[in-house]
Amino acid sequence: MKKNRVTITDIARELNISPSTVSRALKDHPALKRETKDAVKALAEKWDYQPNLLALSLLNRKSNTIGVIVPEITSHFFSAIITGIQDVVGKSDYNIMICLSNESYEEELILVKKLLNMQIDGVLVSPSSETDDFDHFRKLQKNGIPVVVFDRDCPGLEADKVLVDDYSGAFQAVEYLIDRGCKNIAHLGGPLNLSTTGHRLNGYLDALRKNNMPIRREHIVHVPGFSHKDGIKPAKKLFQLDNPPDAIFAMNDNIAISAMHVAKKMGLKIPEEISILGFDDEPHSSFFTPTLSTVWQPVYSIGMLSARILLSHLKNKDNQLKFRKEIFKPELVIRNSSK
Amino acid sequence: MKKNRVTITDIARELNISPSTVSRALKDHPALKRETKDAVKALAEKWDYQPNLLALSLLNRKSNTIGVIVPEITSHFFSAIITGIQDVVGKSDYNIMICLSNESYEEELILVKKLLNMQIDGVLVSPSSETDDFDHFRKLQKNGIPVVVFDRDCPGLEADKVLVDDYSGAFQAVEYLIDRGCKNIAHLGGPLNLSTTGHRLNGYLDALRKNNMPIRREHIVHVPGFSHKDGIKPAKKLFQLDNPPDAIFAMNDNIAISAMHVAKKMGLKIPEEISILGFDDEPHSSFFTPTLSTVWQPVYSIGMLSARILLSHLKNKDNQLKFRKEIFKPELVIRNSSK
Repeated sequence: MKKNRVTITDIARELNISPSTVSRALKDHPALKRETKDAVKALAEKWDYQPNLLALSLLNRKSNTIGVIVPEITSHFFSAIITGIQDVVGKSDYNIMICLSNESYEEELILVKKLLNMQIDGVLVSPSSETDDFDHFRKLQKNGIPVVVFDRDCPGLEADKVLVDDYSGAFQAVEYLIDRGCKNIAHLGGPLNLSTTGHRLNGYLDALRKNNMPIRREHIVHVPGFSHKDGIKPAKKLFQLDNPPDAIFAMNDNIAISAMHVAKKMGLKIPEEISILGFDDEPHSSFFTPTLSTVWQPVYSIGMLSARILLSHLKNKDNQLKFRKEIFKPELVIRNSSK
Repeated sequence: MKKNRVTITDIARELNISPSTVSRALKDHPALKRETKDAVKALAEKWDYQPNLLALSLLNRKSNTIGVIVPEITSHFFSAIITGIQDVVGKSDYNIMICLSNESYEEELILVKKLLNMQIDGVLVSPSSETDDFDHFRKLQKNGIPVVVFDRDCPGLEADKVLVDDYSGAFQAVEYLIDRGCKNIAHLGGPLNLSTTGHRLNGYLDALRKNNMPIRREHIVHVPGFSHKDGIKPAKKLFQLDNPPDAIFAMNDNIAISAMHVAKKMGLKIPEEISILGFDDEPHSSFFTPTLSTVWQPVYSIGMLSARILLSHLKNKDNQLKFRKEIFKPELVIRNSSK
């Protein structure tokens, strides 16, 4: 295991020729004798010589690598987006390097610096929930590295963006609940820094306003994070109100499932006494009891389109005149957790 | 966005000095005049000069990057392992490059070649379900690149390994079902190539044998993949037997949940008429109705330990005399889907 990588110099030494002859032989240079070329190629194969891509990267000033910065990968949401990215990038000459910010602005700064220093060719990013300053992404752009933002917007940053119309998804969901006769619709919202949190909250508020429903401050509770456990306390808080909700529109499926769990523990019937609606349509959401109504997002397509936009910039270096903004429409998926 | 990266040459040209002077000024060389050094540093900061890590990598013949090859990341299992890896590697000087084989041997070969060519420093790998030849991993080792195998074993490959005692997990699970009075315990097994499939099957078989229970060939059905939909048909097949099982031990939680779904559709009471037990303890498994009994694996720790072993090899280049084999013990988590 301790053997070193075979280099052109090793081959040159063994055959008693110069390294540049080896290099030319490997490229099948016409000026060289057939037998020299054959000897070099035979030894290169025997010793399993691999060309040094790093040297090539340095020469071309590119690493042939695309950085993907995501807050986390334990949710189906981001891992499915990455699968979409990988399926597109895997067919190109590029590799992807997936980096996790752990929802931390500080870690995101460090990642961007590392990517910059390794001569990354382009970056696909969904910012952390703490990030509200985007200068580190501008720094990438200033260094000629195209940046495509996906899912979570970076307001004010001029870049390609592939987003989901969260406002419309939330509006549809809440209007559906109103149509079904729900009178007291609460919202379990996400962390306040995120663009998606704001858009979903606005969709919720506008659907209530449009239908002349009262907006109750105590019916809006923001969760600290996106895992199941983050939803338990906020859900309890809602159910223990003097005026408890008859429906909950939750920021994501995990939080909706926490709310279902709490409702069941408290003996509430779903959907007769409480309707619960999520966001994301995770693969297991149709296996809960009752099955979860939710808002579907085209996660795989978000990944694919983001990767395609980035690759097109890398291919046509000079054509990058303006930024694209693509917004996917989410769709309501009604199952049994809502009236 | 089309500006190029600032180089030492750019700074040299602007200040009308030589690139080597710039380089020395940035390193605070004592032979240079204070004012020269100050001018260089001021311009480097103003123009946001970043040292070229690629050049450094080439010099050191290392990329400061660790490759992580996994079959997929949409399951909580692999994404949690990667989170463990990232949390350890993130505190070192290394980056991780996550590569997905999509459970394909061919894609795994291509990934290994790419990693080799980019001078990867070390590789953490869980092989695809198609992989039964490990020469591509040996090729990495021959090039001086340490390989740590995690979760899925590569029989015959000499390398560091961080595995889970799947046999013991399966044995515990099936013996528990027997203790609770189940007489006809079926097994929904994984794809046959995987080491984990074999170990869990053997644990199932040995628990039956030890307890003098009959082994029925028709009670062992292998699923084609690991998602919810892969379990539906195999579960139906079991329930439609003339001698249907009164318990199912499933390869993973997703498949167990498919079986619960099918059982409910057929009007079977869980656990009174059928006990169902999974493997993995995914985060949502305690939120199903009934809550899923399963076998817990220390996924995060598997990732952390694998990364620590690899980093220790990278640090102590000469001390790698023998390979480590670490086997984690899984634990039974009994909830309400089993008697």
